[in-house]
Amino acid sequence: VIITVGPDSDAACVRQELVHRGLWVRRFDGADVVRFVVEPHSARVGREELLRIPGVADVSVPKSTTPLLDGHPPVVRVRGLDIGVGAAPILMAGPCSVESEERILALAGQAAAAGASFLRGGAFKPRTSCYDFQGLGEQALGWMRRAADAHGLRVITEALEPGEVPVVAAHTDVLQIGARNMHSARLLRAAGATGLVVMLKRGMAATIEEWTAAAETLLVHGARGVIFCERGVRSFDPATRFTVDLGAVALIAHVLQLPVIVDPSHGAGRRDLVPALCRAGIAAGASGVMVEVHDAPGEALSDGPQAITPAVLASLGNELFSVRQPTTRDCRPSLTIGSRVS
Amino acid sequence: VIITVGPDSDAACVRQELVHRGLWVRRFDGADVVRFVVEPHSARVGREELLRIPGVADVSVPKSTTPLLDGHPPVVRVRGLDIGVGAAPILMAGPCSVESEERILALAGQAAAAGASFLRGGAFKPRTSCYDFQGLGEQALGWMRRAADAHGLRVITEALEPGEVPVVAAHTDVLQIGARNMHSARLLRAAGATGLVVMLKRGMAATIEEWTAAAETLLVHGARGVIFCERGVRSFDPATRFTVDLGAVALIAHVLQLPVIVDPSHGAGRRDLVPALCRAGIAAGASGVMVEVHDAPGEALSDGPQAITPAVLASLGNELFSVRQPTTRDCRPSLTIGSRVS
Amino acid sequence: VIITVGPDSDAACVRQELVHRGLWVRRFDGADVVRFVVEPHSARVGREELLRIPGVADVSVPKSTTPLLDGHPPVVRVRGLDIGVGAAPILMAGPCSVESEERILALAGQAAAAGASFLRGGAFKPRTSCYDFQGLGEQALGWMRRAADAHGLRVITEALEPGEVPVVAAHTDVLQIGARNMHSARLLRAAGATGLVVMLKRGMAATIEEWTAAAETLLVHGARGVIFCERGVRSFDPATRFTVDLGAVALIAHVLQLPVIVDPSHGAGRRDLVPALCRAGIAAGASGVMVEVHDAPGEALSDGPQAITPAVLASLGNELFSVRQPTTRDCRPSLTIGSRVS
Amino acid sequence: VIITVGPDSDAACVRQELVHRGLWVRRFDGADVVRFVVEPHSARVGREELLRIPGVADVSVPKSTTPLLDGHPPVVRVRGLDIGVGAAPILMAGPCSVESEERILALAGQAAAAGASFLRGGAFKPRTSCYDFQGLGEQALGWMRRAADAHGLRVITEALEPGEVPVVAAHTDVLQIGARNMHSARLLRAAGATGLVVMLKRGMAATIEEWTAAAETLLVHGARGVIFCERGVRSFDPATRFTVDLGAVALIAHVLQLPVIVDPSHGAGRRDLVPALCRAGIAAGASGVMVEVHDAPGEALSDGPQAITPAVLASLGNELFSVRQPTTRDCRPSLTIGSRVS
Repeated sequence: VIITVGPDSDAACVRQELVHRGLWVRRFDGADVVRFVVEPHSARVGREELLRIPGVADVSVPKSTTPLLDGHPPVVRVRGLDIGVGAAPILMAGPCSVESEERILALAGQAAAAGASFLRGGAFKPRTSCYDFQGLGEQALGWMRRAADAHGLRVITEALEPGEVPVVAAHTDVLQIGARNMHSARLLRAAGATGLVVMLKRGMAATIEEWTAAAETLLVHGARGVIFCERGVRSFDPATRFTVDLGAVALIAHVLQLPVIVDPSHGAGRRDLVPALCRAGIAAGASGVMVEVHDAPGEALSDGPQAITPAVLASLGNELFSVRQPTTRDCRPSLTIGSRVS
Repeated sequence: VIITVGPDSDAACVRQELVHRGLWVRRFDGADVVRFVVEPHSARVGREELLRIPGVADVSVPKSTTPLLDGHPPVVRVRGLDIGVGAAPILMAGPCSVESEERILALAGQAAAAGASFLRGGAFKPRTSCYDFQGLGEQALGWMRRAADAHGLRVITEALEPGEVPVVAAHTDVLQIGARNMHSARLLRAAGATGLVVMLKRGMAATIEEWTAAAETLLVHGARGVIFCERGVRSFDPATRFTVDLGAVALIAHVLQLPVIVDPSHGAGRRDLVPALCRAGIAAGASGVMVEVHDAPGEALSDGPQAITPAVLASLGNELFSVRQPTTRDCRPSLTIGSRVS
Repeated sequence: VIITVGPDSDAACVRQELVHRGLWVRRFDGADVVRFVVEPHSARVGREELLRIPGVADVSVPKSTTPLLDGHPPVVRVRGLDIGVGAAPILMAGPCSVESEERILALAGQAAAAGASFLRGGAFKPRTSCYDFQGLGEQALGWMRRAADAHGLRVITEALEPGEVPVVAAHTDVLQIGARNMHSARLLRAAGATGLVVMLKRGMAATIEEWTAAAETLLVHGARGVIFCERGVRSFDPATRFTVDLGAVALIAHVLQLPVIVDPSHGAGRRDLVPALCRAGIAAGASGVMVEVHDAPGEALSDGPQAITPAVLASLGNELFSVRQPTTRDCRPSLTIGSRVS
Repeated sequence: VIITVGPDSDAACVRQELVHRGLWVRRFDGADVVRFVVEPHSARVGREELLRIPGVADVSVPKSTTPLLDGHPPVVRVRGLDIGVGAAPILMAGPCSVESEERILALAGQAAAAGASFLRGGAFKPRTSCYDFQGLGEQALGWMRRAADAHGLRVITEALEPGEVPVVAAHTDVLQIGARNMHSARLLRAAGATGLVVMLKRGMAATIEEWTAAAETLLVHGARGVIFCERGVRSFDPATRFTVDLGAVALIAHVLQLPVIVDPSHGAGRRDLVPALCRAGIAAGASGVMVEVHDAPGEALSDGPQAITPAVLASLGNELFSVRQPTTRDCRPSLTIGSRVS
């Protein structure tokens, strides 16, 4: 945003008013006019409010690059369940990979008992090494669908390439795009074309601007709705697998007013931090959490160390639903007027 | 940690047991023995538990580089107030800089009314540009002390170099080391030598290992106790000033069992994210939050855009004290046995 | 690598010998034995050399996760041209996107005149925003092929999804996998199956371990050879678009002894840094550079600001071929004995 | 920079001209005027050149925050030696720590023989752990001074806190500020006040803007000149200790036209990458390199694994002085007109 000060106005006074509203600004002195450029880490303030500041002659706003996302509702409904800002937080649980029909059925039962509304599980797995387990494919999708149905759960699972999208879409309620594929325009196009609600994980080094641009791609191609999922960004500390960015979650929930889920299993990669980060995610404004669970983590074909057990899931489920999540109205500082277009 | 498998034991079984306990391991095949090296982003499991696994012949643990910190209690007491794991969360509030005697007195009153137990405020300011406001120095320390005393608050403020430590120590209850000086061994030494409790902000690119090493330096030189403070790490997204790492907070609180405070004002740099990140910090296990408040942010001499107003502080204070923070016992997954030495 | 000290040997002496060879080690004291774990940022030293150190009882090395890459030659030949360690540095040049038949033909002529051996150009473009230009597709491939052939150049261009691989493979000499798709296992599989030499750009937050794992996937599925391409990693400084990691280039060239190209156009995103980073890349050990060139950057349909003009390319070409690149033998410190398996 | 398009001009044409000059711009549509904001990763173009573009009505440039640095010459002279843009590259060599009088004397001889003009060495060491070797202090300064004098070398060494500056200044030719203290305003003030030339290492997560602001602080307080030193920034890849940012080096040398040194010993932390990164640094435009050398790295009291031996130093010295470093004029793309004020 560029704010131009009127020719006879006091730029220092205008600056105070901008700072008063939470804006970080850089001052530029032109030939005969002063302008302020708002830095991206500023509070979101609407154009109209800025124009009402005495001495402000003009407020230039860039054209939105995400017009469809700007009109996206704060809540999406998936088979009768509301997910998003103001709705009750949800729990998505399940194994990293679907490993057998019996196991996924048992885990579905445990997830349902813990209060989960979604069963997660990978049939097609994106792995760093080509020698690692790559998922059981289409048959695993069928097992997961039947396990979910048997326990009244919805299904969320991932497709890795455009060619896989139709078969995954035939078995899932929400289609997941993984972090490693967030930048894959072709896959986003195919996923959008299913008309499903899509959960879009954040790329491991994606800015919020790139993440929302990927969401726009989904919507342009026909997705019925988007749910964001923060799963940790790459950083420098080896003590956690990734760094969970709950500032981004707060921004999406409270400033953009869009549904966002937190995945602390991949984010921290540490089972001993999962419950605390689930709580923190909900408190930051997340619409829900996604956690990996396994009845015998030692036998898991992928990511066993970060899976919690069904017993921990049960106590986590109990607890999450008692965390008081303030409504967005409560938590917005009274000084700022949110607007998705800024 | 290195785990050696016994010569006649099945390494694959041992691996399962390790993964079952939340350990990420790399396998090394020696001449006639198999060893597993535990990666740093693993759950913390005690040596004794590992030795009880059938087939484990030896468990090698590196000598601790922070023996004093290992013995640090989970709670420190400052003028009658408990701060730490299991204690009620605390609120530290005040302006970025102390700007006048009247203003700090008024803000102290508002902080106290909001439930704060500490008044924060900078007398010596570390600034990126030498042309920016550098703080009012010693006289500001006196104003802050009197303002805090008038409202029953404790004082927390920062020293920037060893030579300043004595005068700061004479006016404060907790001595703060800022993020820009976390690596300054000389300042840590002087701060420790005061015998005060020191709050140690995390360097903007410091690993948890470097952060705890700095805390050890404080303790070696005589600090009575240490409180960690997460204030955001440097990352790539311009939408926030820094990235608040609540995984690190959860790790310090739940795994290391040490006091840790979250500062979302500097962390996000965005006033509109401060309340959500305060809540999230407490939910992650923080012992309290530190927030910047100003009655007229537009007139602030530093960091006005990230300050909240006294009115927002009041509602935030109300809310924070009603967030249910589970005890550490609740949130530790039953599979893991925490131990600060691993 | 884990090094075990013999029971009657002096661990301190062994440690000295390890440090003497450029190894950073952590010491672990087991029940009756001392072990050192070598940290990843250590010089590469062969197992045999370590076993010859007095007092070393055992050296455990993890099983390689990239056996095919370990056997990959330092040079690949593409239509008569050697690319790799010890070969003369090459120049790949062309526009970001192929925009018209006339333009690509003219640019091919200018690239050839500057000494380039490859024509680069995008027919399928991965873009952050779905509203940006996405490339002209298959017809652009034909234009590029004919333009290259007319000027004796080889073609390098990118496929974005498995379904596109056959048509791209039909027109190109080297198939490129872009940074945004480095983690896409499905695309790597399809690219490998063409049997072509594949140039693999580094993901914007990929570790070298992940990058080499992706190269292994290419080889497992049939790629005839791999060329790495460093195009900048994501970091925190807004003054450049990405951060070009020439340490990684030096590591791949001198330690792994594999072909690696540097792309400073995307890496810096700044035309005014491209020549200096080309020189630096070659000096670091790169087998060549890839640069974007456009005769009218202002009219470019993508990434115009980072394109250099044909005139700058001409002087750059002249200069690059006169940079003395020491042979690998020259630059390896005499103390270390390189080995790709460590 | 903000560029305002004249009311009757074609904004698209202006945009083409801006992109043609290497500028990345964002378009803002005001009430009746179009403006472009130039993004920081753009080529540097002077205000006058922009004003000459048809259709440009105004060019607003922010007031410089580093006026003294803007006037800093491209070359500083230290005891008869020119260091900087256009001058011959220099070599600074020596041990991480000064360990004994004999050793530093011998190393000074070897450094001089290799062509070094500066002896480096730490008397006061900033260490992560308080249990590590902290340097031998003032006596080590005397040893280093005499060793340098005996071999016709200049001295460069570091002070860690303001109180140490006078004694260090009494023994050194160039005063070094280390990466861990780049943000320490108090130390910068004391260092500047010596009137010496100061070498300023980049903080491990400092932006170029913060780095130049720190240099300005040195100059404001009286430093006779500044030499920048890139020593690697913190990043995510464990295969190197830090990530050497040669794009920043190219920017400082070619765009800002200021002296900059590269330190690959700390930057990579790997002895086997030091020679390649020395070459690359010079090729990127560095005015010289600083390397750690030790005759018995296994006995070094700090950072032994990254030290090269005198023999490697000798061959490196030979080679460096034969790398052709183009003059800045050569490497500046003809399209852009550099200007330190933009």
